[in-house]
This record gives sequence, structure tokens and C-alpha cells, in this order.
Amino acid sequence: MAGKLSDAALDTLFRTARTYNHYLDQPVTEDELEAIWELAKFGPTSANQMPARIVWCLSDEAKAKLAGFASPANAGKILAAPVTAIIGMDLEFYEQLPMLFPHADARAWFVGNDALIRESAFRNSTLQGAWLIMAARALGFDTGPMSGFDNEAVDAAFFSATTIRSNFIATLGRGDPSTLMPRLPRPDFDAFNRIA
Amino acid sequence: MAGKLSDAALDTLFRTARTYNHYLDQPVTEDELEAIWELAKFGPTSANQMPARIVWCLSDEAKAKLAGFASPANAGKILAAPVTAIIGMDLEFYEQLPMLFPHADARAWFVGNDALIRESAFRNSTLQGAWLIMAARALGFDTGPMSGFDNEAVDAAFFSATTIRSNFIATLGRGDPSTLMPRLPRPDFDAFNRIA
Repeated sequence: MAGKLSDAALDTLFRTARTYNHYLDQPVTEDELEAIWELAKFGPTSANQMPARIVWCLSDEAKAKLAGFASPANAGKILAAPVTAIIGMDLEFYEQLPMLFPHADARAWFVGNDALIRESAFRNSTLQGAWLIMAARALGFDTGPMSGFDNEAVDAAFFSATTIRSNFIATLGRGDPSTLMPRLPRPDFDAFNRIA
Repeated sequence: MAGKLSDAALDTLFRTARTYNHYLDQPVTEDELEAIWELAKFGPTSANQMPARIVWCLSDEAKAKLAGFASPANAGKILAAPVTAIIGMDLEFYEQLPMLFPHADARAWFVGNDALIRESAFRNSTLQGAWLIMAARALGFDTGPMSGFDNEAVDAAFFSATTIRSNFIATLGRGDPSTLMPRLPRPDFDAFNRIA
């Protein structure tokens, strides 16, 4: 239990936060990426599965490789951004559960159950991608999450000979507010919520 | 672009935030649920899809119904919590895209492509569930997300004759810190991250 955040913090995280396609010309350092992880890692996953495996494309070479597998509109965003994260998911995440969730034989819940493995890896690595986005905002950065790319080609290029598969990607930097368009509609509570 | 949050805010969102199974005996009001939505709705989804449809089980009757479809351990948590959210996903979310994403005929990207519909609904409703968790924390609440329940039975009971399917559920209230166990391991950057 904790207190309510300040209005300024709620703005930074939600109300004035935006997805960015263009960033200021300010590099993001490896230390800053580590600081984002050091917050995001505390976000919840089911039975502490933590299936996400992240590649941070910081070099020009990595950005060019990734951009080659993105839709034309997204390729330009990747090449221009300070860094782009590939949020992957390890389909053998359960091999880490003896370390991550030592209370029970959680590994045994998954071995041989491919449908449960895929569903769990996808849901929980998506949650971890969300924690990265919120952690980045909390530290003064902006992001541009995207799913328009060739997952199989990215997997071959960045996760070759592993059990990791790409989920989504996100550019990251300090957004250039002069490039923002008006925000798209966000319906009120009654549109998509019901009290039972 | 915005400033870094205070250390206290980073604690509330990430570092001292925990998943709760037990809450203080303090009701959560409909106005508070609306306030959580009014923040969470600003979190990003791909092309503003917003596929999540949320049922907030606030009445004893709704809690009992939902608990009947949960694993025994989770049923007790649902019955005791002030409220439990069912985060569903509308598999016809694309019918809202002319309103939510008027820039292009985004509806046409999905009609007839069941694999893309399911992947998009699952990924983006999971992101929205994450925004709800973070918005709840930002407003001083705690949550207990869970996936251990009978999805088909919940769909029949809460989303009958709709195109909505359950994704995950989450209890919500003001957590009782006296019931917390020590936190599970959260590996450092190098374990699950790579710079490229």
C-alpha cells in the first residue's frame, strides 16, 4: 500500500505521455538502459516467469539489421531512434523457474504443454514489455512500440539457434514534442467497462 | 518528454510495489474504478485498438460467480478481495477502429485474418491490463493478477453471446503488508538483456 502519485507524475506516465515516432538528438546510454531494466524487472509476471529476453539495438549496425525486417514506415523510425528494443520471449522460460520460483516445481507445470507455454510466454513477455515502457516514462524517456515487422526474419537474425521468439519492438529516446499529432480518441469508462 | 519521477513514486510503482493476495478491509468505490480507467486508457495499444473489455466484479454475487471458476487457491483470493477485474478482449475490436483510428481503413487490416485478430487482441488487451495495474498503483491501490481460472466457463458466465473472451483477472484493493512473503528473485540486466 502506498500513497497516490503527484499530478505531474500521473501526467508523465499517462495523461500527457505519448507514443513517439521522432526523438531529440540525444543518445541513450547503456547505463540508462540498465536503469530502465532495474525498475521494469519488479513488474509482476505469473509465477515470476519473466519470459522476456531483450535485445537493445544501440549500434548503427544493429539498427540497420532490424530496420531491414520492418515495414517501410517503421524502418525509418528505427534508423532514426537512439535505440530500439526487441522484446523477445523464451519458449523455454520454464527452465529458469527452479531459480525464479523456488516454492514449487513450477517447471513441471509447463514441460510438454506447448499451448500453455506459448500462451504464458506471450502474455507475460507482453506484460514485461509494458513494464519497460512505464519504467522508461518514469525515468524521463519516451517510447514507440510497434508490431509491424517480420517476426521470423528478426528471430533468424537476432535469436538464431535459441528458443527465443520476438514479440514486439519499441523505439526509445527523448521524444520530440514538435512532431506529435493530436491524440486519438480514448473512450470513457462506460464504453469498455462494466460493473458487476 | 518529461522529468524523472521522484524516488517515492518509483518505489510505489516498481521497487516496493508487490502483488497482493490479501487486502485491508476497505471498500473500493465505482468512482475509484473509473479513476483507474481514466489513467489506464491513455496507455498505448497498436493503432489504438483498445481491445480490452473489463468486468469489475464488485458485488458479492459477481465475486462468488467468478470464484466458482477459479482454482481453489485463487477462489479464496477473489472472495476476500474488494473487487476483481476480468480483463477480456473483444475479438471484433476492429469494428471500433473507424472511431478509434480514423486515419486509415484499419478495420480492413483485420477482417477475415483470424490469426492476426487473435494475436492483436491478446497482445494489446494484455498491455491494457498492464496499464490498469500501473494506474491502480499510481492511485495508491494494489493488485493481484492471476491466470489460474477456467477461461471458457468465465466467458460463458460473463461474456455470453458476445465476441469477448477472457484474458486474465486481477484482484484490487489496498494491500495488507502484514501478509507479504519475501520477494522472489529478479535477475540483473545481464541475465535477460543484451546490447547489440
